[in-house]
Amino acid sequence: MNILIKDVQLEGNPSDILYNVYIKGKYIDKILPIKAVDSDNYPFDKVIDGRRKVAIPGLVNAHTHAAMTLFRGIGDDMPLMPWLEQKIWPSEARMTDSDVYWGTKLACLEMIKSGTTLFYDMYQRPEATAQAVDEMGLRGVLSGVCFDHFKPELAERSKKNIPLLEKKIRAYSDRISFSIGPHAIYTVSGELLQWIDRYSRENNLLIHLHLAETEQEVSDSLRNFGLTPVRYLHKLGILSPRLLIAHGIYVDEEEIMLLADHGVKVAHNPASNMKLGSGIRFPFAEMKKAGITVGIGTDGCSSSNNLDMVEAMKLAALLGKGWRKNPEVLTASEMLYAATESGASIAGLNTGRIAEGCLADLSLIDIHSPAFTPNFNFLSNLVYAANGSAVDTVICDGKILMENRKVPGEDEILEEAQASAFSIVSAGLII
Amino acid sequence: MNILIKDVQLEGNPSDILYNVYIKGKYIDKILPIKAVDSDNYPFDKVIDGRRKVAIPGLVNAHTHAAMTLFRGIGDDMPLMPWLEQKIWPSEARMTDSDVYWGTKLACLEMIKSGTTLFYDMYQRPEATAQAVDEMGLRGVLSGVCFDHFKPELAERSKKNIPLLEKKIRAYSDRISFSIGPHAIYTVSGELLQWIDRYSRENNLLIHLHLAETEQEVSDSLRNFGLTPVRYLHKLGILSPRLLIAHGIYVDEEEIMLLADHGVKVAHNPASNMKLGSGIRFPFAEMKKAGITVGIGTDGCSSSNNLDMVEAMKLAALLGKGWRKNPEVLTASEMLYAATESGASIAGLNTGRIAEGCLADLSLIDIHSPAFTPNFNFLSNLVYAANGSAVDTVICDGKILMENRKVPGEDEILEEAQASAFSIVSAGLII
Repeated sequence: MNILIKDVQLEGNPSDILYNVYIKGKYIDKILPIKAVDSDNYPFDKVIDGRRKVAIPGLVNAHTHAAMTLFRGIGDDMPLMPWLEQKIWPSEARMTDSDVYWGTKLACLEMIKSGTTLFYDMYQRPEATAQAVDEMGLRGVLSGVCFDHFKPELAERSKKNIPLLEKKIRAYSDRISFSIGPHAIYTVSGELLQWIDRYSRENNLLIHLHLAETEQEVSDSLRNFGLTPVRYLHKLGILSPRLLIAHGIYVDEEEIMLLADHGVKVAHNPASNMKLGSGIRFPFAEMKKAGITVGIGTDGCSSSNNLDMVEAMKLAALLGKGWRKNPEVLTASEMLYAATESGASIAGLNTGRIAEGCLADLSLIDIHSPAFTPNFNFLSNLVYAANGSAVDTVICDGKILMENRKVPGEDEILEEAQASAFSIVSAGLII
Repeated sequence: MNILIKDVQLEGNPSDILYNVYIKGKYIDKILPIKAVDSDNYPFDKVIDGRRKVAIPGLVNAHTHAAMTLFRGIGDDMPLMPWLEQKIWPSEARMTDSDVYWGTKLACLEMIKSGTTLFYDMYQRPEATAQAVDEMGLRGVLSGVCFDHFKPELAERSKKNIPLLEKKIRAYSDRISFSIGPHAIYTVSGELLQWIDRYSRENNLLIHLHLAETEQEVSDSLRNFGLTPVRYLHKLGILSPRLLIAHGIYVDEEEIMLLADHGVKVAHNPASNMKLGSGIRFPFAEMKKAGITVGIGTDGCSSSNNLDMVEAMKLAALLGKGWRKNPEVLTASEMLYAATESGASIAGLNTGRIAEGCLADLSLIDIHSPAFTPNFNFLSNLVYAANGSAVDTVICDGKILMENRKVPGEDEILEEAQASAFSIVSAGLII
């Protein structure tokens, strides 16, 4: 299908110049000032009226656990370990493929409604996640979470499981990639991490790992391995451009240089880090200066409660300005870059920009609202004043996923996800 | 006009019990389980379908500068003094009554759309603010900002001006109250502050003052007055239950006790404090423990960029959990209390609760959306997952201000506010 978006503003360009954006198949084919379009040259099946709208790249959620939308609101205002032990783990143990599928459908619906077109996921039963993502039309880099809890027999099981999972996930749409999801250094042995690194090198796969999230993790790492988390990974020899670490709050200057020198990518999750009390001093500016690719994520809905990447950009900026007492750092422009192009580059995908030749992943923002009035500065209004509800239209891989804020099948998804969530939770009476 | 809201959930009550809420004139007259309503006893002019909606009290914005919506986005990512000197003050000097009127109309539109029914304002030309608030149907406690810059002739002018302003503001609807707005201790002399305190006591008026917002203010206060800000006010003898201080970040334990002992009220502004880099360690829990009435505010749109009190509740909770590294403090329930009943009690108004006999100021939240799915915990979903766009219907003083997210006159307000903003700014070429 070919789509012509007419008379639209483009983020990063003057607000008084309108463009036509021509999407041919999966790609952005041409971007032209409005008078230059001769429709004979650009045959389209669908035209979208872009007036009073601004096109931005599809947002990229660099770290989440999509199906955990089902646990939204079941354990707020609690410390980490009781929350995991009393609420999350017992619930997860009861999840079926169908639950993961409907939880992911709900997550995809929420992501589409707030302008996200690509996400990096880590969860159990990733085939069910892939099925949901495939149907919903988004792009996903999906990892099956793995643990061995330092037990050789569990490590062996993971080594067998990962290639099987990879094969299963590869059977889905080419919007979906497989990555490997070792949970964390406190749940996965160094031996398995090294095996995963070799496998990822041989098969060109991303590794998605929680790292340096809490002070407890750092002190445990020092006690168990004699090294801080980043130094421990360095000693294991698994720092590489194929590694994405989620959180990365507790890293010192030398560790930032280690991450930079090895091309490691980082996903910053401001809402989760604040809400769980993990820590707030994420060294965004230092990582950027060192040349590290930093994306922004929401984390799962059981810790941050929503998947709104517009809100996540605001939180990242405000938190960084706040703890540094410096209003000049972490600008709106840097936040959009982190939440689009930088996020897309974690997996080396040709998206995150609105440019000819890029994959056609974009949103139209409705600027006829108080948050965008006055419109002195679209990007400031988007990052600091708006939220995901400003997204009107979403296109991913050249297909329209939402138009006029309507996503096909919304009601069924809300109902089925609600039913799944209640059946898991009521079985354990854990609310 | 009498309104019957049928089949609605009430925040704070089990989600499986529906109520009918009967509004008679300005007041909530009856709240009854749905089967108990005999419509002969409750004659209504208007019925609202409350199904799939939850009623919450109208939100209370405890500190803002409404007309500054006109400056949204003109000076982000800048340090305080250049921002004020290069962007805000030159713009404000050019504002007319019409600008303040349209800026406030825009602010009221934004507040209605995100469920706020009462706000505490401080700005120049408060008659124009009052006119806009009167027309838009909200409740406002409005102060004209005053400065004397330590010059006796300016202090004398303020002393003449305040009673005149009071008389003018009293001429508007009884939804509007007058308060006195001395800007800050670094712009208003102690002598004028003491005069204001006497006048407020004699006339039973609230005083709305910025205090203890930045480290600079504290060090200047120590240098100029030999005391920290709260101790300086204490020495002046003007700590009282009629005093509302905005910010209150830099207060020590003894100062918290001084504020508590004198019944001083505090407005916490998390977005502004983070974005301007003012400071993040607001002692919410300590103030609450000391018995201080704490409300939540957004501050003006030139510093925090929006007026969304649903977002402000989330930011207050996340920031407080974040800097303390404690996920158990500042619960969703405490945030809603601060943003409703506590905020309303700053001016002693009979609102902020949904209860028989209270003023009919309330919102209906549409829970048929991803942010409220699953609905294990409405309040958690509201505070942690949703934003102001979840508000469907707003009633203030017994009148419907928004229904199905439509506010009468929206388009005109967006256009006129945009025109006002551009005329002010283009006159100074300050973007």
